[in-house]
Amino acid sequence: MKEIRLIDIRDEILSDNQNLAQVIRQRLLENRVFMLNLMASPGAGKTSLIVETIRLLKNEFRIGVIEGDIESMVDSEKIVAEGVPAVQLRTGGACHLDAPMIESALDTMDLSTFDLIFIENVGNLVCPAEFDTGAAKKIMILSVPEGDDKILKYPLMFSVCDALIINKTDYLPGSDFNIPLLRERMQVLNKPAQIFQVSCRTGEGLDDWCQWLRKEISSYPNNII
Amino acid sequence: MKEIRLIDIRDEILSDNQNLAQVIRQRLLENRVFMLNLMASPGAGKTSLIVETIRLLKNEFRIGVIEGDIESMVDSEKIVAEGVPAVQLRTGGACHLDAPMIESALDTMDLSTFDLIFIENVGNLVCPAEFDTGAAKKIMILSVPEGDDKILKYPLMFSVCDALIINKTDYLPGSDFNIPLLRERMQVLNKPAQIFQVSCRTGEGLDDWCQWLRKEISSYPNNII
Repeated sequence: MKEIRLIDIRDEILSDNQNLAQVIRQRLLENRVFMLNLMASPGAGKTSLIVETIRLLKNEFRIGVIEGDIESMVDSEKIVAEGVPAVQLRTGGACHLDAPMIESALDTMDLSTFDLIFIENVGNLVCPAEFDTGAAKKIMILSVPEGDDKILKYPLMFSVCDALIINKTDYLPGSDFNIPLLRERMQVLNKPAQIFQVSCRTGEGLDDWCQWLRKEISSYPNNII
Repeated sequence: MKEIRLIDIRDEILSDNQNLAQVIRQRLLENRVFMLNLMASPGAGKTSLIVETIRLLKNEFRIGVIEGDIESMVDSEKIVAEGVPAVQLRTGGACHLDAPMIESALDTMDLSTFDLIFIENVGNLVCPAEFDTGAAKKIMILSVPEGDDKILKYPLMFSVCDALIINKTDYLPGSDFNIPLLRERMQVLNKPAQIFQVSCRTGEGLDDWCQWLRKEISSYPNNII
């Protein structure tokens, strides 16, 4: 060998993932299925948001859910209890979902029977932000008890999302969570992102979120360039 | 080549890390420095716990802090404001701290001037659990707003920790967080782990935690086998 060959494993993995994500996006587009990738820390309220959204939209859209967890089926059980089909991906240690995992979940679903698919990613504010799953839109949840400084410490997730949902606003009274400051920082980091303030416990703000979702689904696929 | 050679990169990385962690542990032992690796989701209260512990123990022990963050120095600034030296490790994307990072932090510290060093790991309930940093003890924090089901979904972190701190107990009233159920599940998964219930906001339970820490520091190094 005349020259050193450098194999950057990390870049290769990300690039292979990206290629498969594009294939998935095309497949969903052909089936007119709008897929969302929902990401957040553990306990920020991903499952609760999906459950509340199902309750508000299940008469308008045919919904399915892909649940990603390292272990356990508890989230899938909550989804199925709402009368919506769920595919549970057990990652067995992996800290995020990638395109091959999503492909294997989609292979088990008849895509002609869905309008809207939620991916509930593994609870992690770091790794999932790097992996394209083929979803049309990326949504992140930040819950009030986590604190408003998370945007400084985990900027990638905040910068890649198409919408930021501030959940658990019922915890705002007595909290030092500064919503105007967070909105200001989002203006700098990710100006186009939509921001919603919701409480899955009280129902506050869920109508705005669902209204945005309706609009996105109706303008799909023109809203994914 | 007569046979296929399998190189398991992941296993190699973990094994190299483990070897260096042992070197670090020996070095700390020779200097009689007790090091804790503090792990939790984003926003569970790692920095708050360190700050409160500093306030309660800084007249008894010479304390230092190694702060791990993907971006920003906000946590280090809070530590330095308490009159305690901090080393900020900026991981630039990496989702956990590993032994080489800790070694590079320790290289900047005069170990003869410390009794107790806290590592504040990157906010992540998944990846940090896999990497030995050379710390004498691993501590995890779970905050009440995250929910009691996290032990089912992120079992590795709960099974590797020497102590589990349930933080933000001031959020318990009106919450469905089931402490007896969590304690029961810990009995099955990780019986020897100590469990503390604290609120860094109200100060509840911090005395018990500090009492345990005093005991661990006084019996060190006999408590690490």
